[in-house]
Amino acid sequence: MSASIIAIDAMGGDFGPHCIVPACISALAEFPSLHLALVGQAPLIEEQLARQSGVDRSRLQVHHASEVIAMDERPAQALRGKPDASMRVALELVRQRQAHACVSAGNTGALMALSRYVLKTLPGIDRPAMVSPIPTERGHCYLLDLGANVDCSAEHLYQFAIMGAVAAETLGVPRPRIALLNVGTEDIKGNQQVKLAANMLQQAPGLNFIGYIEGDGMYRGEADVVVCDGFVGNILLKSSEGLAKMITGRVETLFSEGLFAQAIGALAMPLLRRLKADLAPAKHNGASFLGLQSIVVKSHGAAGQESFQSAIRCALREVQENLPQRLHGRLEDLLL
Amino acid sequence: MSASIIAIDAMGGDFGPHCIVPACISALAEFPSLHLALVGQAPLIEEQLARQSGVDRSRLQVHHASEVIAMDERPAQALRGKPDASMRVALELVRQRQAHACVSAGNTGALMALSRYVLKTLPGIDRPAMVSPIPTERGHCYLLDLGANVDCSAEHLYQFAIMGAVAAETLGVPRPRIALLNVGTEDIKGNQQVKLAANMLQQAPGLNFIGYIEGDGMYRGEADVVVCDGFVGNILLKSSEGLAKMITGRVETLFSEGLFAQAIGALAMPLLRRLKADLAPAKHNGASFLGLQSIVVKSHGAAGQESFQSAIRCALREVQENLPQRLHGRLEDLLL
Repeated sequence: MSASIIAIDAMGGDFGPHCIVPACISALAEFPSLHLALVGQAPLIEEQLARQSGVDRSRLQVHHASEVIAMDERPAQALRGKPDASMRVALELVRQRQAHACVSAGNTGALMALSRYVLKTLPGIDRPAMVSPIPTERGHCYLLDLGANVDCSAEHLYQFAIMGAVAAETLGVPRPRIALLNVGTEDIKGNQQVKLAANMLQQAPGLNFIGYIEGDGMYRGEADVVVCDGFVGNILLKSSEGLAKMITGRVETLFSEGLFAQAIGALAMPLLRRLKADLAPAKHNGASFLGLQSIVVKSHGAAGQESFQSAIRCALREVQENLPQRLHGRLEDLLL
Repeated sequence: MSASIIAIDAMGGDFGPHCIVPACISALAEFPSLHLALVGQAPLIEEQLARQSGVDRSRLQVHHASEVIAMDERPAQALRGKPDASMRVALELVRQRQAHACVSAGNTGALMALSRYVLKTLPGIDRPAMVSPIPTERGHCYLLDLGANVDCSAEHLYQFAIMGAVAAETLGVPRPRIALLNVGTEDIKGNQQVKLAANMLQQAPGLNFIGYIEGDGMYRGEADVVVCDGFVGNILLKSSEGLAKMITGRVETLFSEGLFAQAIGALAMPLLRRLKADLAPAKHNGASFLGLQSIVVKSHGAAGQESFQSAIRCALREVQENLPQRLHGRLEDLLL
């Protein structure tokens, strides 16, 4: 396999180089064909690199970038005001074909705005969408949009469905079942956008559209690709994270009240920890921006080392599968 | 305390009189001042009553209604085509002041349409909303709308916020913290409706509006009243139900794999069952329709006997607290 180069925004996220540099070193050890370009304030990156042993500098470059986009900065400001921001320089490396993909744990809105501006969308795509695998009773499904687009037309939902299906297929789901998230499964249910999108999807050739799905159906694993606008998707994702945390917290509390429960709890804890790790998909997997001409993966802002490494893994997989190219081909069939 | 009379749609839900009649008998035993009017096909109701022992018929009447609204019937059809449906006759008893409230486990859309038509909304309220308590890390919050209104203007969200706050206050939360569900907590986040509603709520006198909340913040218990449109609320509610079921299922699976885990599991099961019961609020508590001139509580369609009894309890509480009257007073201050 030929070398894959991934540009890393080393300054993004809540922890910056302190967490990102060790994640990069682990990823290099995991994938012998991986090369990384770490973008950010060189002295800070080098300081973290100096703490690591056995760093293979032949597969790791450092690109200095003087500016950093804050986590609460407005996207428009990030776009206009910071030409030398680490996030932007990392995306520029992709545009100039010095890297195959970009991974950042930085400001989501800024990453979306800069990605669109620097890398452009694929022909036929108005807006990129964020997608991530969500655990279900039968494995996982791909949910999109996770928050890049708060207002969506039927046409946007239709484009998201196609992009989600191609991504799922590329990442190993044969003939993915596509569903639109709705408040009921009957034809009369839903808002105008959802009804129109359903109509468009029914008529699209070669798509395995199975109709509407409700929130509980998604967790039962009734579809492989679940489509909604970014407002709904983001609220679903975050409320699920919150609920999963609350439930696992309650399970822990159950096992800490009284000696009998404590004794059971001590035995059960390793099992519960495994479960807990399973249930924070966005935190652990990163979210892919679909619909751009190149690959951009957003790692969770609060991601630790393992999660950032997992986002690199996700980007690498998309590079190896050539996801944007495959998306382009399918979109040409369906949209143009 | 004076007698409270509740009209029961005895034909609604997945199980009908078979489940509803025993729930009614238990509720009568629980509340000595409660009177019930069971509406539906009299022979079927009497058949179930005959199976119960010690029924106090002085507090229980049966009203015959010849028609039944199917769970999948269109609301418009139910409204026009079935004048003698059990649901409608139960609502008519409330309108004629022969009952103080109505409880039904039937078709949600039909119940909403019939409630609006028969009972009318309070002055200043365009559309009733569905509200239910949702468990959080600190207790519970009231989430609305849960699905009665898929498209909502800022004005509707504003009305929901006021109704939710009055309901929470009436049901025992002093100075409830009101929040709008959004994709972020910064001012720039969200769609136009949410931003406008936030603006209106900031300017309303005497409301404890705390701004935006995200899905995880809701489960952390950061607000007492969480407001969103019915599309988002319904998807949040159902996906939470699905996720809770998936997680408790996984916990059970964890404890069934291998002898060691099985032994722990046998000990832990009673604790886990308690947790599971806590986590299906809509199933267990019923959802109140807020904004009508009288009290209507929707029990879950798949509700068992205990859940239906819990919906009766909820309606009785609203009768005793005189919720519509208090709502009316507060709305006059804020809206008219």
